[in-house]
Amino acid sequence: MKMVMAVVQDSDAARLIEQLTENKFGVTKLASTGGFLKSGNTTLMIGVEEERLEELISLIEKVCRPRKQVVTPFPGGPGDAYVPYPIEVTVGGATVFVLNIERFEKI
Amino acid sequence: MKMVMAVVQDSDAARLIEQLTENKFGVTKLASTGGFLKSGNTTLMIGVEEERLEELISLIEKVCRPRKQVVTPFPGGPGDAYVPYPIEVTVGGATVFVLNIERFEKI
Amino acid sequence: MKMVMAVVQDSDAARLIEQLTENKFGVTKLASTGGFLKSGNTTLMIGVEEERLEELISLIEKVCRPRKQVVTPFPGGPGDAYVPYPIEVTVGGATVFVLNIERFEKI
Ligand code: NI
Ligand code: NI
Ligand code: NI
Repeated sequence: MKMVMAVVQDSDAARLIEQLTENKFGVTKLASTGGFLKSGNTTLMIGVEEERLEELISLIEKVCRPRKQVVTPFPGGPGDAYVPYPIEVTVGGATVFVLNIERFEKI
Repeated sequence: MKMVMAVVQDSDAARLIEQLTENKFGVTKLASTGGFLKSGNTTLMIGVEEERLEELISLIEKVCRPRKQVVTPFPGGPGDAYVPYPIEVTVGGATVFVLNIERFEKI
Repeated sequence: MKMVMAVVQDSDAARLIEQLTENKFGVTKLASTGGFLKSGNTTLMIGVEEERLEELISLIEKVCRPRKQVVTPFPGGPGDAYVPYPIEVTVGGATVFVLNIERFEKI
């Protein structure tokens, strides 16, 4: 069995958890923030059998892949000059660590 | 040395941490929620020497084993019809992952 | 690749994260509390290549090493008798676990 620790953007977390749950992956959500103290990310801890590891990683890729998004910046945001037109930003992305589980107990 | 990640119910967490501390296990509590976004669980990270691993898992089993509890539902709870008599629910349960620690440093 | 889980004092966390970031270590901060339910600690999850592991542990040692600090207790603190003169306390310290990462994906 493997443990997958996936660090994903907050904005992708709810959709990923929903997809994982629908596909019968057991997931625990840990509160976390990025090292740069920027906007939040979420760390998910997922226990998975070897034979479903590829399926799990594909699912994370599908939900969290980096993609362009057009946003209209909101005036008065802290620390940034006001940009009065829509801009394109990249959202998404994930960091995935796979660790070996030596023993697993469901109590 | 092993790392035990134990996901337990919030209602069992305080009692388990107390028992672990009394028995000289070093434990760190991570904030977490279940994947189903239901009521909270707690993830405990415990470093343990191999020779005490069985003792640790037995302790978790003792504190967190699923058991029946009679509760009188509180009127006006969100989303549920009012049940005007005591009902039996199952509480407790835990998911325990054991990982290998390659190196351990106490600074 | 290795995963380093470092449990450090809250008071050292911000400085350590800054140093890690400056030195190009990828770090994720998990909310955590000590097992004794005392004042907070922080768990940092750091992915690191084997060849930088010693450098990483040295950095944690440098920032978090236990050291004496002179503090003047604040009158009226809960549960403690008022001590009307400066006292020396030990701050810092860290617990560091190194785990093996079997697979790493940047999505
Ligand atoms: Ni396995
Ligand atoms: Ni060992
Ligand atoms: Ni490696």
